[in-house]
Amino acid sequence: MAKQPPRIGVIGGGQLARMMTAPAINLGLEIKVLAEAADSSAKLATTQIGDYNLLEVVRQFARTVDVITFDHEHVPLKVLEALEAEGVNVQPPSKALAFAQNKLNMRQKLGALGLPMPAWAEIRDASSLDDFIAANGGVAILKTPIGGYDGKGVRVVRSAADAIDWLDNLADFGGSLLAEEKVDFVRELAQLSARRPSGEFVSWPLVETIQENGVCSVVLAPAPNAPDEILAKTTAIAEQVAQGLGVTGVLAVEMFEARDGRIVINELAMRPHNSGHFSIEGSVTSQFEQHLRAVLDLPLGSTAPRAAHSVMVNLLGVDDKNDFVQAYAKALVAHPEAKIHTYGKGPRAGRKMGHVTVVADSVEHALAEARGAAAVLLRG
Amino acid sequence: MAKQPPRIGVIGGGQLARMMTAPAINLGLEIKVLAEAADSSAKLATTQIGDYNLLEVVRQFARTVDVITFDHEHVPLKVLEALEAEGVNVQPPSKALAFAQNKLNMRQKLGALGLPMPAWAEIRDASSLDDFIAANGGVAILKTPIGGYDGKGVRVVRSAADAIDWLDNLADFGGSLLAEEKVDFVRELAQLSARRPSGEFVSWPLVETIQENGVCSVVLAPAPNAPDEILAKTTAIAEQVAQGLGVTGVLAVEMFEARDGRIVINELAMRPHNSGHFSIEGSVTSQFEQHLRAVLDLPLGSTAPRAAHSVMVNLLGVDDKNDFVQAYAKALVAHPEAKIHTYGKGPRAGRKMGHVTVVADSVEHALAEARGAAAVLLRG
Repeated sequence: MAKQPPRIGVIGGGQLARMMTAPAINLGLEIKVLAEAADSSAKLATTQIGDYNLLEVVRQFARTVDVITFDHEHVPLKVLEALEAEGVNVQPPSKALAFAQNKLNMRQKLGALGLPMPAWAEIRDASSLDDFIAANGGVAILKTPIGGYDGKGVRVVRSAADAIDWLDNLADFGGSLLAEEKVDFVRELAQLSARRPSGEFVSWPLVETIQENGVCSVVLAPAPNAPDEILAKTTAIAEQVAQGLGVTGVLAVEMFEARDGRIVINELAMRPHNSGHFSIEGSVTSQFEQHLRAVLDLPLGSTAPRAAHSVMVNLLGVDDKNDFVQAYAKALVAHPEAKIHTYGKGPRAGRKMGHVTVVADSVEHALAEARGAAAVLLRG
Repeated sequence: MAKQPPRIGVIGGGQLARMMTAPAINLGLEIKVLAEAADSSAKLATTQIGDYNLLEVVRQFARTVDVITFDHEHVPLKVLEALEAEGVNVQPPSKALAFAQNKLNMRQKLGALGLPMPAWAEIRDASSLDDFIAANGGVAILKTPIGGYDGKGVRVVRSAADAIDWLDNLADFGGSLLAEEKVDFVRELAQLSARRPSGEFVSWPLVETIQENGVCSVVLAPAPNAPDEILAKTTAIAEQVAQGLGVTGVLAVEMFEARDGRIVINELAMRPHNSGHFSIEGSVTSQFEQHLRAVLDLPLGSTAPRAAHSVMVNLLGVDDKNDFVQAYAKALVAHPEAKIHTYGKGPRAGRKMGHVTVVADSVEHALAEARGAAAVLLRG
């Protein structure tokens, strides 16, 4: 172990880069972050501050590391393609990220792979949107192909009139929108997996995600009452997506379990994902450790659970009159099993400020403890 | 949680400071390190580089944090006492560290508390040393009261002639030496615990430590075949030491289990300790997380095990022709359960370069896997 350990460069200073820092320390890997601002969530590992939209900024960062990976999916493809052409090791590569950055391209590719999806259509005008709505029970989910996340860039529409502002400005969205069937689902699921450039693939147990106002609120790991048939299906889907799209590192496939029994793909994330935070305490190998190993093309770790049940509850928004130390102490006393994670962010309504994970023998107990701790942390 | 999180300042940039960094990130605490050099093990969290022997250096560091704690026990008491007089929050406080820094003071204090120890004597001349040796079976362990660790400053002597160099230079050691009975032990044990300034005390399960050449090599958690009577005794010893000496943060009490059945105190460490590294994976709350919570006077976490057995093997020394990535990849493939920790240190014979922990249902399996992974890492 004498030669220098590999250096991982993460673009983006958010909580995902922050949470990659801890396993990098444990593993003895060197981690560097290109952050947007000095006071980011990942400031401890920040070695450069700059705009990731600028090729020269990212190129300068790339010179200091052995592999580039990501806290988010917003780095322009042109920047990444230019660096790849210069020999920079980018994981996941731009050809995979292209599908994460553009939901229409993603739908087309998943369709070509024969993977299960909601009904969908590319929308270039009001009449095709109205046709799609009429063919799908009078309602559709309309999405901007680029730039949406956590409920942004997504709208429920019942006629083209509900989207006239978007339809009148199609050029802002690359010329078209994505209309999707509003799936009548019994629950939402997420399949976390990881893949190395050289091909090794592993997946974690399927989880159930519960959203509030379009943002993930609670994750139950494993998904309760999921028959083997569904587990086999979701694992196969994740593997087909990872291989078919050339994804490396951690991949999260968000899915609906429809009332009619279908499992259909909702969204993809080519990075550690909120649905996998439970794995820090709940899995032998966390998604953050696995992502580092995967992008370095190191052997992947066991995804076996470390407890029967893990429940993660997000800390969304915050009461800015709340005192950290007091709320923290109160939560730790009242909920001693809770593992509290905060992201060092300033308060803003609805913002993901942190999360709480509880591992336990019973899902009810884990959920009650995690929710209890989160309530104390948010409301004092 | 709107107000700023508490800021912890760690003096010393070694692997203990490094390993405190990961839980600080998870907990959302701010951690800063005063390191001796730019390229220390804890460089990610280093905010100041300087000599901890200089009051002005430590004072400057103290101004940037809410509490001062330690990677090692070498900061001069005078420096800490001066800062405490100025109102700086130092944990553990100087009055406790005084006993960690001077083994004679420690023996005197433990004696006053009635705690079990090897026979010992303060040695000021050759004849008193020869008397002690004669009274203790013809052999003694001679220690310099200050500055010894990992086998340094410790010598087995069978007559005063074996220590003539030390006896001729007593002034270098504060005027006297410490002679101790060479305990005929069946094994070595360590009791890890933590205490808050406001009094809360918790202890982890007792562990067995195996030394090679005076340096900890393997830790078995829990200590195999330890009857309840011993567990009760070692926990009570740790609590008496912590309370009696006013220790805050993590305390490690190293003990001998003598062939005649006695449990006697060997050494104390008032900080996270090598015997507690297993707790990163093996305990609900690791010693590093617990130390941060304790020095901030936050409620302590559960010390319950996360698996039946944890085994830690140190990575001592290194083959400097070994390639990190290749050895790492080989170890991960051959020993997928091993959690590998490296400290970012340059190679030196016998140096603690990192450690490997395996948690498992069987101690034999955990030991074999941890030793196997360590062998690959050290020898490729």
